Amino acid sequence: MTTTIDGTRIAQRIRAQVAAKVTEATGSGRIPGLATVLVGDDPASAVYVAAKRRAIREAGMRDFHRHLPPRATHDDVAAVIDEFAADPHVSGILLQLPLPPQLDASVLIDRIPVTKDVDGLTTGSAGLLARGERGLRPCTPSGVIALLDAEGIPLLGAQVAVVGWGELVGQPLAQLLLRRGATVSVAHEHTTDLAAVTRPADIVVVATGVRGLIGPEHVSPGAVVIDVGIHRTPAGLTGDVRSAELDGIADRITPVPGGVGPMTIAMLMVNTLRAAQWGAEREPVAA
Amino acid sequence: MTTTIDGTRIAQRIRAQVAAKVTEATGSGRIPGLATVLVGDDPASAVYVAAKRRAIREAGMRDFHRHLPPRATHDDVAAVIDEFAADPHVSGILLQLPLPPQLDASVLIDRIPVTKDVDGLTTGSAGLLARGERGLRPCTPSGVIALLDAEGIPLLGAQVAVVGWGELVGQPLAQLLLRRGATVSVAHEHTTDLAAVTRPADIVVVATGVRGLIGPEHVSPGAVVIDVGIHRTPAGLTGDVRSAELDGIADRITPVPGGVGPMTIAMLMVNTLRAAQWGAEREPVAA
Ligand SMILES: NC(=O)c1ccc[n+]([C@@H]2O[C@H](COP(=O)([O-])OP(=O)(O)OC[C@H]3O[C@@H](n4cnc5c(N)ncnc54)[C@H](O)[C@@H]3O)[C@@H](O)[C@H]2O)c1
Ligand SMILES: NC(=O)c1ccc[n+]([C@@H]2O[C@H](COP(=O)([O-])OP(=O)(O)OC[C@H]3O[C@@H](n4cnc5c(N)ncnc54)[C@H](O)[C@@H]3O)[C@@H](O)[C@H]2O)c1
Repeated sequence: MTTTIDGTRIAQRIRAQVAAKVTEATGSGRIPGLATVLVGDDPASAVYVAAKRRAIREAGMRDFHRHLPPRATHDDVAAVIDEFAADPHVSGILLQLPLPPQLDASVLIDRIPVTKDVDGLTTGSAGLLARGERGLRPCTPSGVIALLDAEGIPLLGAQVAVVGWGELVGQPLAQLLLRRGATVSVAHEHTTDLAAVTRPADIVVVATGVRGLIGPEHVSPGAVVIDVGIHRTPAGLTGDVRSAELDGIADRITPVPGGVGPMTIAMLMVNTLRAAQWGAEREPVAA
Repeated sequence: MTTTIDGTRIAQRIRAQVAAKVTEATGSGRIPGLATVLVGDDPASAVYVAAKRRAIREAGMRDFHRHLPPRATHDDVAAVIDEFAADPHVSGILLQLPLPPQLDASVLIDRIPVTKDVDGLTTGSAGLLARGERGLRPCTPSGVIALLDAEGIPLLGAQVAVVGWGELVGQPLAQLLLRRGATVSVAHEHTTDLAAVTRPADIVVVATGVRGLIGPEHVSPGAVVIDVGIHRTPAGLTGDVRSAELDGIADRITPVPGGVGPMTIAMLMVNTLRAAQWGAEREPVAA
């Protein structure tokens, strides 16, 4: 029998834990705050940002927000980031992607101080992750790790296949898994024999953006399958894995929706709390 | 028949190319320079630094050097790094490791500006590597890539096993290989079935510091084996691979000595030249 991993429930538990810690922090006069920056009128981005802001308020944190017009210039966005960077009430800054084409996302992201980089996407945060140093990790891959931990699935010595080596998910995830002592194989669009990479794995994580890429031909009996893909179809959301075909083969599998998706927002809450704690520790040091 | 890859010859060719480019640069009044910083009296470190300085001079570059006493303080070393960082004649700065125990290597390394980080070991350089942005890459892993390129071994779509995930070699190497489109599996001390990781590989790179770890039980016929390990034994230098036992199995193999070792110094020359070019490009931009 294949068990469906309930990401929604695990995410709720994590969010409740964050809320409890925020209550404690509030008692001592420090309320964590997240600043979201949205540029332009992309409807999907607006929905994502609204969901993040709602979650922040539900957790008892401060919600800062700036919405810039679609034709905002580099300097406009940079000024908003700099303002939030200097504001001691802002623990974390999230620049919603994608940005309109006139803006260079990677330069603007790198303007966010690493101590406030709750999305973990700056070059500085990537360096801290690579070196295994304290820093904020990207939300979706840390959500995958938190999900596996919540399910009690051991990573030390596990054989894990990471399918997809994108900047947001696969790249940081491979590093997080290796830090936890997993043996990691990474496959991507240039991989010639995908099944050869995934079949030996105890855990298969799929983040390719290719709908239904992974099926029974890729997965050994008893494996855990984590589907990070999200595709909007007329029949609803679906992922990179043909889940129905894995029923009876995989030991456990994440659904889409209700698997990794909710974990991403939960980890944003965790990162905002961590950023607030990090900021508080740094303040007395600053002159 | 197994071919022995001649790292010494490949490294010499690269060093000659660097020397030719240095001659050009010198003509236009810009001589690249490397500053080596040695702290303490470790005899092996002294030998390594001397070899690097000799290579720098042979390539026609400027050789800056500072030798600090074993009891040098953090501030002593920091002051030397800052001086070289500010000196426009110094293209690259190399802080020889290991440092005496009173010094925090990672904090001191991070004091080197990324544009002069010819060892590629700062958090900043690790971030640039992770994001695939312009930056200086660690010498030994880029030496492995240069060796494979010189041998005409394709990386795109190749299945590569990286054995050892250390900060100096395995970690950056896995990323460099993935950027080149290889499918990469990473094994380390927590890997439960090492042969299962290495046997499917077209290329096996070994950097564990475990003498003779890899033998015929790990390698499929026709594979390329790159041995990064270096061990001093009464019988001379030897590596992490039992090379003699792979004769007739591997297609090509690097010897120890004369394989990856000489490539490390060659890539330091390449990095110093690149740092000089990068610095020259940045100068007109700076106010
Ligand atoms: N659940 C979440 O909260 C969440 C968050 C971020 C991304 N995602 C989803 O995860 C997926 C990946 O996101 P990303 O930003 O990393 O994407 P990306 O485009 O940056 O990376 C995709 C990766 O998949 C690889 N790939 C493409 N085709 C492949 C194939 N046929 N076989 C093997 N590998 C292949 C590519 O080489 C690349 O490495 C998308 O579906 C995205 O919607 C979900
Ligand atoms: N040729 C050169 O110029 C050069 C340069 C740097 C390092 N080296 C050599 O490369 C080797 C590795 O260097 P490093 O700095 O990366 O070392 P490190 O100690 O930082 O990392 C060693 C890695 O090997 C792994 N490992 C240990 N035992 C193992 C086992 N039994 N099976 C599989 N993996 C195992 C560890 O988990 C770790 O990931 C050393 O022998 C070093 O001398 C050579």
